[in-house]
Amino acid sequence: MKPISVDDLAGRLGRWSAGRGSLYLLLAARLRELVDEGLLPAGTVLPPDRSLAAGLAVGRTTVIAAYDLLRQEGRLTRRRGSGTWVSPGGGAAAARAETANPMFVNLLEPPDGVLQFACAGPSAPPPRLVEAQRRAVDRLGGDDLGYHPSGHPVLRAALATRYRDLGVPTTAAQVLVTTGAQQALALLTRALVRPGDEVLVEAPTYPGALDLFREVGAVVRATDDLADALARSTPALVYAMPSFRNPTGSSLSALERTRLARSAGDVPLVFDEVLADLDLTGAPAPPPTPGVITVGSLSKVVWGGLRVGWVRADAALVARLARFKAVHDLGGAVLDQFAAVELLADFDAVRSERVTALRRQHDHLCARLREELPEWGFTPAEGGQTLWVRLPGVDAASYAQVALRHGVAVLPGASLDPTGGSGDRLRVPFTAAPAVISAAVAALADAWRAFGAESTRRPLVPSMSV
Amino acid sequence: MKPISVDDLAGRLGRWSAGRGSLYLLLAARLRELVDEGLLPAGTVLPPDRSLAAGLAVGRTTVIAAYDLLRQEGRLTRRRGSGTWVSPGGGAAAARAETANPMFVNLLEPPDGVLQFACAGPSAPPPRLVEAQRRAVDRLGGDDLGYHPSGHPVLRAALATRYRDLGVPTTAAQVLVTTGAQQALALLTRALVRPGDEVLVEAPTYPGALDLFREVGAVVRATDDLADALARSTPALVYAMPSFRNPTGSSLSALERTRLARSAGDVPLVFDEVLADLDLTGAPAPPPTPGVITVGSLSKVVWGGLRVGWVRADAALVARLARFKAVHDLGGAVLDQFAAVELLADFDAVRSERVTALRRQHDHLCARLREELPEWGFTPAEGGQTLWVRLPGVDAASYAQVALRHGVAVLPGASLDPTGGSGDRLRVPFTAAPAVISAAVAALADAWRAFGAESTRRPLVPSMSV
Repeated sequence: MKPISVDDLAGRLGRWSAGRGSLYLLLAARLRELVDEGLLPAGTVLPPDRSLAAGLAVGRTTVIAAYDLLRQEGRLTRRRGSGTWVSPGGGAAAARAETANPMFVNLLEPPDGVLQFACAGPSAPPPRLVEAQRRAVDRLGGDDLGYHPSGHPVLRAALATRYRDLGVPTTAAQVLVTTGAQQALALLTRALVRPGDEVLVEAPTYPGALDLFREVGAVVRATDDLADALARSTPALVYAMPSFRNPTGSSLSALERTRLARSAGDVPLVFDEVLADLDLTGAPAPPPTPGVITVGSLSKVVWGGLRVGWVRADAALVARLARFKAVHDLGGAVLDQFAAVELLADFDAVRSERVTALRRQHDHLCARLREELPEWGFTPAEGGQTLWVRLPGVDAASYAQVALRHGVAVLPGASLDPTGGSGDRLRVPFTAAPAVISAAVAALADAWRAFGAESTRRPLVPSMSV
Repeated sequence: MKPISVDDLAGRLGRWSAGRGSLYLLLAARLRELVDEGLLPAGTVLPPDRSLAAGLAVGRTTVIAAYDLLRQEGRLTRRRGSGTWVSPGGGAAAARAETANPMFVNLLEPPDGVLQFACAGPSAPPPRLVEAQRRAVDRLGGDDLGYHPSGHPVLRAALATRYRDLGVPTTAAQVLVTTGAQQALALLTRALVRPGDEVLVEAPTYPGALDLFREVGAVVRATDDLADALARSTPALVYAMPSFRNPTGSSLSALERTRLARSAGDVPLVFDEVLADLDLTGAPAPPPTPGVITVGSLSKVVWGGLRVGWVRADAALVARLARFKAVHDLGGAVLDQFAAVELLADFDAVRSERVTALRRQHDHLCARLREELPEWGFTPAEGGQTLWVRLPGVDAASYAQVALRHGVAVLPGASLDPTGGSGDRLRVPFTAAPAVISAAVAALADAWRAFGAESTRRPLVPSMSV
């Protein structure tokens, strides 16, 4: 049990109050980070409320509220008379159980014998990829050190050609190849967002992006209307999914995209288009909006294990991102990039095959849900990989726990919604084969009956003692 | 021309003085970062020396010296009477020309028609890799989303087996697969180093590691004797290459490794063993030292374009690194990981083939240098990929510029030495085929004659006007 002095703690807290929002939430967020990253080890005794409040020049209630929030989360232990300390084993365990995004937790610690419906993506490498990889191996050879931080020149050229084919002049220098769209977003965040900066996002949205913004210490502001929010503030970055947004499946029209780009002005606007090729009507992806930073990927059209994503942006930004990529991993796998070149050469066939499968699976999922879970509400998707399902009057996170015990991992809405909304929503993917979808819906229905039978159904919004 | 107030600039400077060393260098380093990252855009007028000095509570000479240094670098413009401002276009251009490590610059902007001797690694994918990639494709198939943030289970198991074969109990949970050793170091830096922390390194050392430490805002301290330095300070991390250190080729004995681990105590000690398999005598890599974090890679034994590296550490740290990897790229390329499994199954043959080629190239390089550049001093290498050559009484960075004009890119010693030493050294790799080595040495010799003929040979230490 080592006590930490007010001065030492204040030093570690750094510019904790730089963000927006209630002071106690900002203080709690920074303390949570220190605990989770082991910078305040288990057993560390924190200063008394009053001393810390004086040291930070805030009201005592701010410190009490922050301490109480972390106590509720299990990170701190508080005893009247003996003070406040970091819970034993607390940081790591609490972080794993609570702060880590459930999408990542499901990938990091895949539960045995559970249907993986928390992550959405092709459930197996398609035969077309296997063929493309075989042809890719034939491209290996000749003098090449193999380090291509901006991407292999052949793939950069192929991606530029693809954008030109979509009707937008693009050079290879405007394309950076990344390890999937996730790294594209990570590099953009590194380049454009500083601690305390505001990042504007849609609500709900892709949780993997939220984690990146939070990791860098940004203040994430979510809105239903980005253009409107832009009229009233100047964030460091705007992140949007204009095509079949994850998880809702909603899209912006061409006009709405242009308007949004106009309202962004000089603010960097990122369009995450990883789902743009998955229009269930079979229509091709829309061309990139001028002036917008576009992120793309083959992970959803082909396979997640093919780690090829990219950024299309102005050449100066691409050069800057490439410097970060060089320092962070020296460049991506060459063979995957060659396979991407092969797949892009026949992209319409690749996309059409994937969309055909998704449409069949989508229709099957809708039919099974209507049959087995008629109380659940949803609108059929026009594209993408998921249905955004409403569970009438229920805390979907609690239900998801019951579903897990019945053998299906699903993502509750709250983990995709930084406003704290979407608590009654569930994201259900249609990326598995029809037989697996049938089994999953049957298990979800079992879980639903078990959940309904529980004597005390938990309230929608968990109570807070603060 | 927008002026920035003292308060605003002080806010952006943050904890600039937290590091060690002269105040003016710390201030210049932080200002340089703000300029290079565009946080002080071109045209921004900085506060007068006297006001900034008062605002930062430092002497006026400190501010003048920092401003002057950045003016010399081209980042700032100063005019008597009209003040100090960020040079037009300054940040980005200056950053590209000067701060970026020459190793990365050579990869990012490979000069046309120049022999690439600034980067060391196999110069082409070997036939064994092509065969391994073919067998890897056959492993594709079956249900798998393809996202493996900790690494594919089959490769994690194969790496654990390899360490057990070297005599050290290791489980798959102690192994994290990364996109090359560079990402392994990036994740370790992210997990273990905070801004202002001290990182202890050898001098000279691998420049790609230095860039990572500096990017996170660490204070890099370089020493010839890590154990001795550890007796006098407690850094956040120690980074060492105990086997055929890049660039010197020197190694620590088993006893020295154990002693170093003991002096590190609780301080995380990272052994970068990417060159450990390249013992020119053909001896296998030493087993990992207990309690030490080991970084490995196939990039130097097989090929840089096979982006497979790893960290061996305790399971708790591996789990933490995996969380960062999940957020940053969701996991590496699956096919490369399968190829790594194939290569590890026959690793002694892979290594022996590579070492045989390196030995031949090493002997050829030594012979050519003795013949064509007898004034240059070097000790033959015992392992690794490079010779550490001394250019008698000469600024090797200036010579490297002349060599580049003669068609060979080489790394001058100063870029690998954070102490500011090694100014008369050049790193010369023996990774190219003998004929290419011959051509490179001939060009280096031409450049040497041209350099010697220059009327004003530049002094070893560039003069500073501060």
